Amino acid sequence: MEVVTTIEEMSKISEELKKKNKTVGFVPTMGALHMGHINLCIRSKQTADITIMSVFVNPTQFAPHEDFNKYPRDIKKDIELAKKYNVDYIFAPTVEEMYPDGFSTNIFISGVADLFEGAKRPGHFNGVALVVAKLFNIVNPDYSFFGQKDYQQVVVIKKMVSELNFRTKIVLEPIARLESGLAMSSRNVYLTETEKINASNIYKVMLETKRLIEDGLRTRKTINETLVNKLSEISDLKIDYAVAALSKDLSEPEIFENKDEIIILMAAYVGKTRLIDNMLIQLN
Amino acid sequence: MEVVTTIEEMSKISEELKKKNKTVGFVPTMGALHMGHINLCIRSKQTADITIMSVFVNPTQFAPHEDFNKYPRDIKKDIELAKKYNVDYIFAPTVEEMYPDGFSTNIFISGVADLFEGAKRPGHFNGVALVVAKLFNIVNPDYSFFGQKDYQQVVVIKKMVSELNFRTKIVLEPIARLESGLAMSSRNVYLTETEKINASNIYKVMLETKRLIEDGLRTRKTINETLVNKLSEISDLKIDYAVAALSKDLSEPEIFENKDEIIILMAAYVGKTRLIDNMLIQLN
Repeated sequence: MEVVTTIEEMSKISEELKKKNKTVGFVPTMGALHMGHINLCIRSKQTADITIMSVFVNPTQFAPHEDFNKYPRDIKKDIELAKKYNVDYIFAPTVEEMYPDGFSTNIFISGVADLFEGAKRPGHFNGVALVVAKLFNIVNPDYSFFGQKDYQQVVVIKKMVSELNFRTKIVLEPIARLESGLAMSSRNVYLTETEKINASNIYKVMLETKRLIEDGLRTRKTINETLVNKLSEISDLKIDYAVAALSKDLSEPEIFENKDEIIILMAAYVGKTRLIDNMLIQLN
Repeated sequence: MEVVTTIEEMSKISEELKKKNKTVGFVPTMGALHMGHINLCIRSKQTADITIMSVFVNPTQFAPHEDFNKYPRDIKKDIELAKKYNVDYIFAPTVEEMYPDGFSTNIFISGVADLFEGAKRPGHFNGVALVVAKLFNIVNPDYSFFGQKDYQQVVVIKKMVSELNFRTKIVLEPIARLESGLAMSSRNVYLTETEKINASNIYKVMLETKRLIEDGLRTRKTINETLVNKLSEISDLKIDYAVAALSKDLSEPEIFENKDEIIILMAAYVGKTRLIDNMLIQLN
């Protein structure tokens, strides 16, 4: 496995791979790798000839008051883990390499980027779109693998890929969960043991709500109220948002139809840590 | 020569060309081709294996009050001319193909896109950046050829290419001029014969100013005043802006240094037609 730190070298490598007709799978991450990331690598290894993982804590997707500085970083451990799972290249540029002085380009995706997570974290998805556009151009992947945990992010990126005509195919991988049901997240290191137990109830609430929907609950407002009421019962949890929407474009019809795929999306503070989670529900 | 109208087909063709290790030269145009465009094609033919020209009057770079609807269009003549100069592919999509319903992605490049032409035509360079980013992803060119007449556009695009890490190399071609000195432009069809004669004096003013600079004039304010005074003497001409700046980033130092490359940039209405022109001056 090779660790690449400059854009120039990474671009050259991906260009050589293209010339050799190798397909490239790309796993963009902010490091602090867990099984969610590893699942993306495994899928990439199954899909493409070569797997490139990026490890870059992207400052443009953090607001000034957010946790950019304290976001967990352990590049040594990340490299070991990636090596173990046969990742071919790690691209780990510095902030200065990605955003040199005087950098002034921005990408805005209105609509889907303004809802839910976008409303709570203004500018977040612009920062995500920007870094992902850059990485797509640098890595030139045939397939790009994203985790379902950041579901809205994937909807935003798919829209950008479609509208800016990027060539990569976006592949969505299911959420990796601990046995307790807690969604794996690099931010889980912020949680105390008690907070982890409390946070694991989020999954139970979503499962219960899913069952109600499968049993016939179709009114969005009632689903949202149910979600909020159930989440409110969890100790030491403060809801940021908890909603049901159509999975394809995150639109919010009054009543869901029998053939819709619904997504439950939520964000909440458990203690001081902000967690997000979601669940897809395919109606029949 | 093949005329391609869908993004899917154009993407497939450019992907096949890459697989065959062909280099691709790209000439983006809004059609209504003149020798300025043809020069770009000739240069592309000299540089790359395959030349792809796009013909697309891009609505997102026109403000509502501007001339999008009456902008000259003659795709038949454009195709004939491109064929004559051995262009390999013309990409001529519809507006609906490029901007389907619900399109919501935007690219902003602050700083250089806000000056001069960008200040007079707010949003113009965002629209240019957007369509060029899309075209780069669709055509995947090794070289992209732009005319110096839209000099600020080239500075903006170079900044986008650098900051979003596009792989294409930007090549600048000199302004094609009529014998009178008038810069060739698709918008020249709007001019009457008298207006053409008046407009040709723009070139003379820039040449005179260039000589003054070469003879030692270095104070930006004085250069700008000279430009404005001389342009004001042209019949039926209304200055929109006329400035000297550094060619590399369009910054405006008080005094130019002896090793600078200066650019004179101007826009003016001749009758009802808005024309732009510029001149590069390399100091020694």
